[in-house]
Amino acid sequence: MVDVLIRTGSVAITGSDIHVYENGNRDVEGMTLGHDATGFIEEVGQCVHHLHVGDRVVVESALSCGICDLCKRGLYNMCGGLVYNGFLATHQVHPADLCHRLPDSISMEEGTLTQTLALGCQACFKGNITPTSSVLIIGSCPTAVAAAMCSTAIGCKQVVIASTMNSTLEMVQKDFKFETVFFDSNALFGEVLEAIYRKFREWPNCVINCAISAMTMNLAVMALQPCGVCVLSECESECASFNALDILMKNIRLIPSFRSTNM
Amino acid sequence: MVDVLIRTGSVAITGSDIHVYENGNRDVEGMTLGHDATGFIEEVGQCVHHLHVGDRVVVESALSCGICDLCKRGLYNMCGGLVYNGFLATHQVHPADLCHRLPDSISMEEGTLTQTLALGCQACFKGNITPTSSVLIIGSCPTAVAAAMCSTAIGCKQVVIASTMNSTLEMVQKDFKFETVFFDSNALFGEVLEAIYRKFREWPNCVINCAISAMTMNLAVMALQPCGVCVLSECESECASFNALDILMKNIRLIPSFRSTNM
Amino acid sequence: MVDVLIRTGSVAITGSDIHVYENGNRDVEGMTLGHDATGFIEEVGQCVHHLHVGDRVVVESALSCGICDLCKRGLYNMCGGLVYNGFLATHQVHPADLCHRLPDSISMEEGTLTQTLALGCQACFKGNITPTSSVLIIGSCPTAVAAAMCSTAIGCKQVVIASTMNSTLEMVQKDFKFETVFFDSNALFGEVLEAIYRKFREWPNCVINCAISAMTMNLAVMALQPCGVCVLSECESECASFNALDILMKNIRLIPSFRSTNM
Amino acid sequence: MVDVLIRTGSVAITGSDIHVYENGNRDVEGMTLGHDATGFIEEVGQCVHHLHVGDRVVVESALSCGICDLCKRGLYNMCGGLVYNGFLATHQVHPADLCHRLPDSISMEEGTLTQTLALGCQACFKGNITPTSSVLIIGSCPTAVAAAMCSTAIGCKQVVIASTMNSTLEMVQKDFKFETVFFDSNALFGEVLEAIYRKFREWPNCVINCAISAMTMNLAVMALQPCGVCVLSECESECASFNALDILMKNIRLIPSFRSTNM
Repeated sequence: MVDVLIRTGSVAITGSDIHVYENGNRDVEGMTLGHDATGFIEEVGQCVHHLHVGDRVVVESALSCGICDLCKRGLYNMCGGLVYNGFLATHQVHPADLCHRLPDSISMEEGTLTQTLALGCQACFKGNITPTSSVLIIGSCPTAVAAAMCSTAIGCKQVVIASTMNSTLEMVQKDFKFETVFFDSNALFGEVLEAIYRKFREWPNCVINCAISAMTMNLAVMALQPCGVCVLSECESECASFNALDILMKNIRLIPSFRSTNM
Repeated sequence: MVDVLIRTGSVAITGSDIHVYENGNRDVEGMTLGHDATGFIEEVGQCVHHLHVGDRVVVESALSCGICDLCKRGLYNMCGGLVYNGFLATHQVHPADLCHRLPDSISMEEGTLTQTLALGCQACFKGNITPTSSVLIIGSCPTAVAAAMCSTAIGCKQVVIASTMNSTLEMVQKDFKFETVFFDSNALFGEVLEAIYRKFREWPNCVINCAISAMTMNLAVMALQPCGVCVLSECESECASFNALDILMKNIRLIPSFRSTNM
Repeated sequence: MVDVLIRTGSVAITGSDIHVYENGNRDVEGMTLGHDATGFIEEVGQCVHHLHVGDRVVVESALSCGICDLCKRGLYNMCGGLVYNGFLATHQVHPADLCHRLPDSISMEEGTLTQTLALGCQACFKGNITPTSSVLIIGSCPTAVAAAMCSTAIGCKQVVIASTMNSTLEMVQKDFKFETVFFDSNALFGEVLEAIYRKFREWPNCVINCAISAMTMNLAVMALQPCGVCVLSECESECASFNALDILMKNIRLIPSFRSTNM
Repeated sequence: MVDVLIRTGSVAITGSDIHVYENGNRDVEGMTLGHDATGFIEEVGQCVHHLHVGDRVVVESALSCGICDLCKRGLYNMCGGLVYNGFLATHQVHPADLCHRLPDSISMEEGTLTQTLALGCQACFKGNITPTSSVLIIGSCPTAVAAAMCSTAIGCKQVVIASTMNSTLEMVQKDFKFETVFFDSNALFGEVLEAIYRKFREWPNCVINCAISAMTMNLAVMALQPCGVCVLSECESECASFNALDILMKNIRLIPSFRSTNM
C-alpha cells in the first residue's frame, strides 16, 4: 500500500473549484472539490517510508495514470486520464508520493498556496529566467504574483506586473513592492507600450502572460526584445490573436505553461 | 581583405525580390536585387584562404554587423543592421565567409535554391524533427517543399503536405512523391482534420506552418498531439489567431523560424 | 488489472544476462534471466485496451517504481528501484504498457534486438545527431552497430566505426557497408587519429563511445572538433581518464546514455 | 571606425598573465599583458554610438575573428583565431563592442574582476542552476568564489565550497559567509564525502569543478545525485580520470565552461 490517510487541514478555494461547482456536469459527478489543500497524516500504507503519522503535508491533487506516453516522458500534468482528489471533506485517501511535508515555518493556510507557487515557478522555468532577464508579467491573478516572486528569487534584473485590475495592482505594489503598470482595456497600444518602456528603460526579454487575450498577446509580442520568449500561462479569453509578421521578424517563441509537474 | 569578387552565375527570383521591386521605398534605394544566387570567384582578397579563382559558389546574401548582441549570440539572421548584396548584375564584391563552394554535382541553377533549402532545414531543426516525428507541413511554397525534403532526409516517420493550392500539390505529389491533403479555405475544420488524420492514422507531433493565417493556426493547434510543436515559418496573412485554451491544455509550443543562420 | 500474460517467443542472451549468471549473488536470487525478449499475448487484464490475445510483442523488461522523483521526471531508466522480468521461461506476467506490438515484417527473433536498437537510438538522440553530423563510433558491440544504423537513418553526413576487434569490423563492413577503422590497443595515438581523419577528411563533431577506457576517452577528445560532443554509452574498463586541458580548451561535452526510456 | 582609445584605469594580474610572462614563447611575442582591465574612453571612432569620451568601461580583452563557424554560432570564446589586447600600458585601442560601461557604484579596481565574475556566471548557466539546485563548488580560486556568488544570486537552495586550501576557505567563510568543507589531498574519499553530505543533508545535484584533477573528478561523480551535472571549469592537473561505470549508472553529464561569451 502506497497511500496515506489525510485529515484535511486547510483548503484554498480556487477558480477551477468554482468553475466545476457552477458548471459541473456528469463528467465530474462524485468529484470532491478543494484541490489546493494541506492536511495531517493519520495513517500510512505499509510501503510508505517518507511520511509518518502526524506529518503536516501539502498535496498535489491530480492523479495521473503513470503508464501513458506523456506520464513516462515526465509530462504527467498532461496525462489524458487525470482524476482529482478533493479535500473539502474531513478525510481523504491519497497517494503518498503526491504528499510533501511542510516546513515548520509554513502554516497550514499558507501551505494551500503551494500549487499556485508551483505554477509561477514553472512559468519562470519555462521562460528560462536568469539574472540577465527583464520580466514583464501580464495579469494580476495569484499565478502572476507567484511568477513575479519566483522571478525575483532567481535574481532577475527587473520585474514589472501589468494589469487592467487597479485594485489588485495596488495591493501587489503595497504588499509585495513590485513595480506595476496599469492599463485600460481600451487604451491605445502605443501608450501602454510607452508606460512599459518607461519602467524598464529597455524592452523586456521575457513576458509571462497570465491573461491571454487578443490584446495582451499583441502587447507581449510588441513589447518583447527580438528573440524574446512569451510564456503562456492563463487565459482571459478563449481566442487570442497575434501579428504573424511581428512574431516571425522578431523571432518570438510562445511557450505554454499549464498545470505543474514535479512539484 | 576578406572579400571576393564574384561573377554572377545564376539568380533565382524570390518573393522578397518581387516585394522590394514593387513596394521598394527610399530605404532600399540603391539595393541590387537577386539575393538567391550562385557565381564564379574571379578575385580573392589576400586574407581569403578557403576559396580560389574559378570556384563555383553559392552566397548568403545578407550581411550582418557582427558586433551587436544578437550577432554575438549566433543569431546573425536577426541582426538589426542587415544589408543585402544582390546579384542581378555581372559582378558583386562579397565577404568570403558568406560564399560556400558548390559540389560538382550541383549546377549553378540548382545552387540558387540553397537558401530555400536552408530555410526548410532550419524549420526542421527548430521543430527538433527525428525518426520519431510525424510531420504535417501546411503550405506548398518552396520552403514548405524544402522542409518536407529535409524531414524525409532526417528519417521522420511520415510527412504530409496540406495546402489550398491544388496545382502545386499535384506537382509535389507527382515529382516528389509526398503525401498531400488539399483543403479549401472555406472547408469545415472537421473535414480537413479528418483528412489529415486519415493520412497519418494518428495525429502529427510536429506542424511546420508555411502559410500562417487564422485558419491554419487553428488547424495546426487542433491537429497536433498534446505536447507537440508548431514551427512558424511563412505568413499568408498578417494576423493569426489561435484558441488560447487549446494551446494551453494541449501544451503546444509555437517556435518561429525566420531566415537562416550558419548555412 | 493492467498486466498481460505472455508466452515467450524468442530471447536474445545479452552480456548482462551472462554477467548475472556468472556473478549473481543474493540480490538477484529468484530473478528470471532473458531480458531481451519477444512473445505472444495469451491473456490480457481487464484494463488493457491496446493489446489483444495473439498479439506478437517485444517487451521492455525493466519495471520502474513510477513514483520516485526520477520516474516522474521521465527518467524511469534511472529509477533506483528497477526490477527485471526475465523470459527464459514458458510464460511471464508483464505490465501491458511495457509491451509493444511488433510489425508483421519483424520476426520474433529479430524483435529481440529492439532494446539494443533503442540503446543505439538513444545514444544518437543524446548526441543530437542531425544531417550536419559526422559521427565516429568507438567499439563494435551490438549497441555500437545500432548507433551507426540510427545515425544513418537520421541522414548524418558520415559514420565511421573504430574498434580493436578486427573480426567484427569485417562483419560490420561486409554486412552493413559501414566504413571502419581498425586500431591496435597498443597503437600510437597519432596513427589512429590520422586513420580517422583520412576517413572523414575533417574531424568528427560527435563521438559515440561504446568502449569507454582511458585510451578511447583520449582518442575521442583528441579526434573531436571544438565544441563537439562525446556520448558515453558502454564501458570497456572501469576507469577512464581524459586530458582535462583538452576537454576545456576544445569545449567537449560528455553525455551519458545508459539504458533506454520511452521505447 | 568601430574602435575606441582607452586610457588604462586599473588592471588585475591573473594566473594567465603570469603563465605567459613566465613561459611565453615567440607565439606571444609583442603581446601586451593585463587582460582583466578597466579604463577611461579618450577617443571614439565615428561609428561608435554607445560610448562617449570620459566613460568608465570594463573590457573583454579577447578579439575573435567574427567570421569562422564557431564565431557565427555564438561561440566566439572558442574562436581559433583569438588575439588578446593587454592593458599594462598607458593606452590601448580596442573594439567598442568589447567595452562595457561600469555603473557608478563600481570602482575601477572592482571592475577588473568583471571577467572573473563572468566565468562564474557562465559556469552556473551551463549547470542550469535554479532555486531547486544544491551546488557543490570544488576549488577556492576567484572563479570558484564567483560561481558561488552567482549561484546565491540565482537563489539556489544551498552552496558549499570544498577545497584543499585552508587559508582561502577561511577568508571565503569569513568575508562571504559561504559554507565550506576543507579536505586534505590525502584524505579518504569516504571521509570527504561524509563531510559534504553533512553540510547538504542530501547529495548535491550540481558540482562546479574549478580544480579538475583525478581526485576531484571522482569526488564530483561520487557526491552527485543521479542525473546530476558536473561543470568543468578550471584545471588543477592536466589529467583527470573518472569511474566510467559510475558516470554511466548515475547518468552524470560533464559540461565544460571555458572563457566567457556574451559578457
